[in-house]
Amino acid sequence: MTFLAELQALLGADHVLTGADTDSYTLDWRGRYRGRALAVARPDSADAVAAVVRLCGRHGVPLVPQGGNTGLCGGATPADDGKAVLLSLARMNRVRAIDTDNDTITVEAGCILQAVQQAAEQAGRLFPLSLAAEGSCTIGGNLATNAGGTQVLRYGNTRDLTLGLEVVTPDGEVWHGLRGLRKDNTGYDLRDLYIGSEGTLGIITAATLKLFPLPVARCTALLAVPDVESAVQLLGRARQGFGAALTGFELMAGNCLQAVVRLFPQQRLPFSDESARSPWFALLELSDSESEAHARERFETVLGEAIEAGLASDAAIAENITQSKALWHLRESIPLAEAELGKSIKHDVSVPISRIADFVRTTNALLQERFPGIGHVIFGHLGDGNLHYNVTRAPGQEEAALLALQPQVYGVVHDSVHAHGGSISAEHGVGQLKIDELPRYKDPIELALMRRIKKALDPAGIMNPGKVVRA
Amino acid sequence: MTFLAELQALLGADHVLTGADTDSYTLDWRGRYRGRALAVARPDSADAVAAVVRLCGRHGVPLVPQGGNTGLCGGATPADDGKAVLLSLARMNRVRAIDTDNDTITVEAGCILQAVQQAAEQAGRLFPLSLAAEGSCTIGGNLATNAGGTQVLRYGNTRDLTLGLEVVTPDGEVWHGLRGLRKDNTGYDLRDLYIGSEGTLGIITAATLKLFPLPVARCTALLAVPDVESAVQLLGRARQGFGAALTGFELMAGNCLQAVVRLFPQQRLPFSDESARSPWFALLELSDSESEAHARERFETVLGEAIEAGLASDAAIAENITQSKALWHLRESIPLAEAELGKSIKHDVSVPISRIADFVRTTNALLQERFPGIGHVIFGHLGDGNLHYNVTRAPGQEEAALLALQPQVYGVVHDSVHAHGGSISAEHGVGQLKIDELPRYKDPIELALMRRIKKALDPAGIMNPGKVVRA
Repeated sequence: MTFLAELQALLGADHVLTGADTDSYTLDWRGRYRGRALAVARPDSADAVAAVVRLCGRHGVPLVPQGGNTGLCGGATPADDGKAVLLSLARMNRVRAIDTDNDTITVEAGCILQAVQQAAEQAGRLFPLSLAAEGSCTIGGNLATNAGGTQVLRYGNTRDLTLGLEVVTPDGEVWHGLRGLRKDNTGYDLRDLYIGSEGTLGIITAATLKLFPLPVARCTALLAVPDVESAVQLLGRARQGFGAALTGFELMAGNCLQAVVRLFPQQRLPFSDESARSPWFALLELSDSESEAHARERFETVLGEAIEAGLASDAAIAENITQSKALWHLRESIPLAEAELGKSIKHDVSVPISRIADFVRTTNALLQERFPGIGHVIFGHLGDGNLHYNVTRAPGQEEAALLALQPQVYGVVHDSVHAHGGSISAEHGVGQLKIDELPRYKDPIELALMRRIKKALDPAGIMNPGKVVRA
Repeated sequence: MTFLAELQALLGADHVLTGADTDSYTLDWRGRYRGRALAVARPDSADAVAAVVRLCGRHGVPLVPQGGNTGLCGGATPADDGKAVLLSLARMNRVRAIDTDNDTITVEAGCILQAVQQAAEQAGRLFPLSLAAEGSCTIGGNLATNAGGTQVLRYGNTRDLTLGLEVVTPDGEVWHGLRGLRKDNTGYDLRDLYIGSEGTLGIITAATLKLFPLPVARCTALLAVPDVESAVQLLGRARQGFGAALTGFELMAGNCLQAVVRLFPQQRLPFSDESARSPWFALLELSDSESEAHARERFETVLGEAIEAGLASDAAIAENITQSKALWHLRESIPLAEAELGKSIKHDVSVPISRIADFVRTTNALLQERFPGIGHVIFGHLGDGNLHYNVTRAPGQEEAALLALQPQVYGVVHDSVHAHGGSISAEHGVGQLKIDELPRYKDPIELALMRRIKKALDPAGIMNPGKVVRA
């Protein structure tokens, strides 16, 4: 039998796609990476995944796992040599168990993130991972890339939300590690080694995740802030004043929200004209276990003191859930407004929170020096030190002229991130986009350790080659 | 030069101990493990540690790292063949940096945990790791064993408190990974691989740790609870009602606290005689970002509802910090009371919280069947599913007779833990105590992956041999 016939015999012909049927899998959603695949395999169980991996191992065929295909770094797109099998986890989409007394949910890798959130909510619990792609990304992809999002300040990244994993190893064996334990010190932390390894060490097929109580109320406030230094001080006060009730702290440059309300006239800033021209804004969210009134009262107390201290010039506290959502909607519309303004050069970076202000000032100046007139759209999760630092056209500059500068702009921004003790990939991962940037910034000892682990666990190099680290 | 002369040349003769000077290092603090060492090396920098590791590598001499020597599983005690160098991190005890805007502290491995807590507090911050040995254990040991303690419910284990590490690899190189970043997705999670690896993959020499706001108030309540099921329901209500303000939830069998007040008459239970005879007690702690009055009011609301629902028969809410401390002191006196009652067979186990009640009932019955009349002292961190399930003498039984049963008792309890989806080492690690128990309970695939990683990172097998996993 040929390889393809064997694959079809394993999964059934319906679940092995070839030719044009693979096209939607081998192009990433932004259309930046176009690969080719020998076939798309769609197994529906860990055992079937393991059988596919063993078959590929025998034939030396590389495997590229894929969830919702919403990644930003090409991690789920195969090379264009057409030699790999793309392994889609989409059919593994069952919620296997919810345990409300243990506050855990066990789900398969192909579950859409929103379905996990909804299953938790139906059981009266919160699964707090939340990000823009939640309607189409899968929890398997979130695990593979250790996805972040808007609730990390309080609940952590995907890693912090995970207790146990089921993984198919590069040998095609199933590691049954779906433990629902909050304390377990019986050996090496393989769970966290797999989380964030982007399918290069094995394939995560299921996970046991932490659930939390549903907050009784959520309340949001938008503040006009004079500068990044003040935003950092405001964050410190908010952490002190609200404790773990502070579940969101987003920073946005004034021009982001000003573009949103210019381009989408049904949205507005809840401020006077003067405050609406603020150079920076901060969006704060409280999740309260008492009441909406209590959350608002806490906001009034702590934000009142912050305004008195000069850390903010104005604050709008949502009066109800509709107003809270409207404030979040301003924040969430930034990427849409960006897209309206034309292509930009995007960076997903983090630096220590204490160095963010200096990072922004220094990097802006370096870019102006090299590329006079160039623009910025800067926003992000200040509570995590994570900025989306995006570079836009100078007045009158053609889109193509900007994009031609991408390698140099990357160089300036990433060198500056590195000089500020930061990371060139905060929450999106490495994929193929940054694999050759890593050696420039990563401690060579660390990179050598990564290579040793890759070689130890995947000696044949069949797991998602060309991603994260070159063997 | 001989090996010892080379070692002395590296560190200075004062910092290489031999003969009887090594005795206090090669006996664990409980006197359960007696090893021997070629020498005790006391380097004072990561570079010096690296030089010692390279020297040992050249001579094929094994290394056993040691912090405060407070472990419970013999992880820091060398074998008795006297071939290993014991590497004490005690001199590496500097606080390297505190960054209040980033809420991080960078400390060397030899820092006493209490010194880390104090340095944080002096900077107006909380470092929440807290456990019985905090006055003498080191943060390096906490990292090596992923220590737990009493605040895990809210703040997580040592792993969850760590952002970056500095590690000396088995090749004697220094990995400079002291990042203070809350989001960093640039490759494999080596940090968490080293945390909890008990010195078998390298030596952690420093760490960058998370800090938190100091709570404005802490308040404690003690509840008389009819059974474990009710305690689990009470935990659910407390999580819902208090959110992240709930920083402690301890469960104690009635006989634990009854022994404490019998043996230490200056302590008392704040209850009527009837409530003081309760079969179970729960200790809850709130950390409040508003005020003590607010914490008490929250306690009154939520615990009042719990009593109405029949989940507790009585509750005592501390009126002030002195009373809060007195309640914690009851809990902390259990191990002392245990010691007064004679030696016991101890287990540090965890199971999913939803299965704790069944685990306790089943395991008690199994033990009674096998060893009629045998006693239990059961307490632990219910919020983490972590029980210290200790087995005590039957009436009239000699201590020696009980201890002779240890292997069989271990077998019964650990088999039951395993049957309930639990872990045979929740927070103490593996060390030499449980290395040969692991293969009985661990998925063989997982154990094989651990061995591959050990071999890849420490091919010569010189790092803390005989601990965690046999190569």
